[in-house]
Amino acid sequence: MIHEHSKLLLWADLAGTFLFAVQGALIAVPANLDLLGVMVLAFSTALVGGIIRDVLIGAVPPASLRDWRYATAAFTGGVIVFFLHPYVRSIPAPFIMTLDAAALSLFAVAGTEKALLYKMHPFIAVLLGAITAVGGGTVRDVLLAQIPNVLRSDIYATAALAGATVMVAATKLRVPPALAAVSGGLVCFLLRVISVWQHWNLPKAFTG
Amino acid sequence: MIHEHSKLLLWADLAGTFLFAVQGALIAVPANLDLLGVMVLAFSTALVGGIIRDVLIGAVPPASLRDWRYATAAFTGGVIVFFLHPYVRSIPAPFIMTLDAAALSLFAVAGTEKALLYKMHPFIAVLLGAITAVGGGTVRDVLLAQIPNVLRSDIYATAALAGATVMVAATKLRVPPALAAVSGGLVCFLLRVISVWQHWNLPKAFTG
Amino acid sequence: MIHEHSKLLLWADLAGTFLFAVQGALIAVPANLDLLGVMVLAFSTALVGGIIRDVLIGAVPPASLRDWRYATAAFTGGVIVFFLHPYVRSIPAPFIMTLDAAALSLFAVAGTEKALLYKMHPFIAVLLGAITAVGGGTVRDVLLAQIPNVLRSDIYATAALAGATVMVAATKLRVPPALAAVSGGLVCFLLRVISVWQHWNLPKAFTG
Repeated sequence: MIHEHSKLLLWADLAGTFLFAVQGALIAVPANLDLLGVMVLAFSTALVGGIIRDVLIGAVPPASLRDWRYATAAFTGGVIVFFLHPYVRSIPAPFIMTLDAAALSLFAVAGTEKALLYKMHPFIAVLLGAITAVGGGTVRDVLLAQIPNVLRSDIYATAALAGATVMVAATKLRVPPALAAVSGGLVCFLLRVISVWQHWNLPKAFTG
Repeated sequence: MIHEHSKLLLWADLAGTFLFAVQGALIAVPANLDLLGVMVLAFSTALVGGIIRDVLIGAVPPASLRDWRYATAAFTGGVIVFFLHPYVRSIPAPFIMTLDAAALSLFAVAGTEKALLYKMHPFIAVLLGAITAVGGGTVRDVLLAQIPNVLRSDIYATAALAGATVMVAATKLRVPPALAAVSGGLVCFLLRVISVWQHWNLPKAFTG
Repeated sequence: MIHEHSKLLLWADLAGTFLFAVQGALIAVPANLDLLGVMVLAFSTALVGGIIRDVLIGAVPPASLRDWRYATAAFTGGVIVFFLHPYVRSIPAPFIMTLDAAALSLFAVAGTEKALLYKMHPFIAVLLGAITAVGGGTVRDVLLAQIPNVLRSDIYATAALAGATVMVAATKLRVPPALAAVSGGLVCFLLRVISVWQHWNLPKAFTG
């Protein structure tokens, strides 16, 4: 078991945690959840993707439960949205979407890096990077008794997969770690932002 | 890994398991599940919270899968409700609620104690105690395709969090373990029972 | 930790993976999921049961994430259904059901065998065999925001439990492993196929 993080991993995780918690709480409030429910959705959106990754690679207790700062970051995001909801909601949607795309990229890259650290096969590391990035939002939607949005529309998990793939490929090509991470993150971020702007979607199966 | 339990932990877990299984099965029957579905919901309500805790702290196989008595207690609760449903349902609601509050307290305390045994940070131990107590009911509601009730109303997870907090604080103050457990359990139990009696709820966010 | 599989386990898992992925994808397409959603449901149906088993017995990373062939088999099944959906759907239902019963049997037997290898109690090994077989389909239904079909009707998990029980009993009676596996698989397969043909269902609780 590896008990140290790379610094990159730690800070990427903490920054993304706060951003995802805010976004999870913003979805919890209109669903008529109480204070506890908002906190649980903030926590789930922010941390459950990484927790699933850590459980699957055998890094238990998960990083986000070994360091109290992760849960604190998530609950801080949740509390801010709970008490300042009308103000937070008045933030323009494109700004929220851009922050969310940044968090998505951070999580995809951090998740992929950790999976590679734990010697996972490159193909599996890509999947684990994407699970880190979208697993929390998926569980959030399940808790709201909805089909996870990520399964139906938008280039969201796809952007995470693309970023993770770039990062794994760059790592295999012996690109320095920081550059590999930045490249992967940038691909994820740009693909997400451009796809929202251009209304891109994945195809659905021809059922005729 | 720790392969022995404190006796307190073992008996608290077994007693709570049966009580939670009965309560889970009572929700499964009106949802039109078959015998297997009632058993799965009894098992999930009773044991999945503790299983999640054990997976997260690295205590695998989870206690409830290492000792056949846990699953037996859960299935016994499920079978009793399945075959004697009209009788069990005729038990007055306040009595069921009180038993459920007792099981909630037992699980919150046992879960917190185990998390502390595994050297988790006090703040995280409180969260894990609450997950032990309400995780099973949450998964039960997800299996019924409903938003978990615990996220919307009642002082339920909140009572578990309060009891777990008291137990952690008492432990840090070097209160003897049995007294710390009883104090935490009592706070959880009383907060739960009084909140039902007084119709207390957590606030919801102001969305105006 | 055991890093080698028995050959039986490996090939049973791979064959079942493809069959379950096809069946999961066939349910995903009419639910209006996009390409990514179809892939996720194919993966979940095929592999999440085994992943849950491996996490619970402490065999992490799970077998299906340590060997890229599992995910490849699942995604291959998903892609075939996505692009050839009208053709795959035109396959007669009894044929699909029979294949699904075969995969169910393979998973139940492979899951039980692995649980026994990891020294689980026979009773728990039976439960883990059934979870291996039906856990993926259960998560698939949860992702579709539906009450898992396995909890409501059909002799499906019950067939898996029966097959797992036969296999555990045969193993305890020192029947050679291959024969124990074939016996368990056959019981599961026949019980499933006959129950569909005869419209058998489990009882529901008397609620009058």
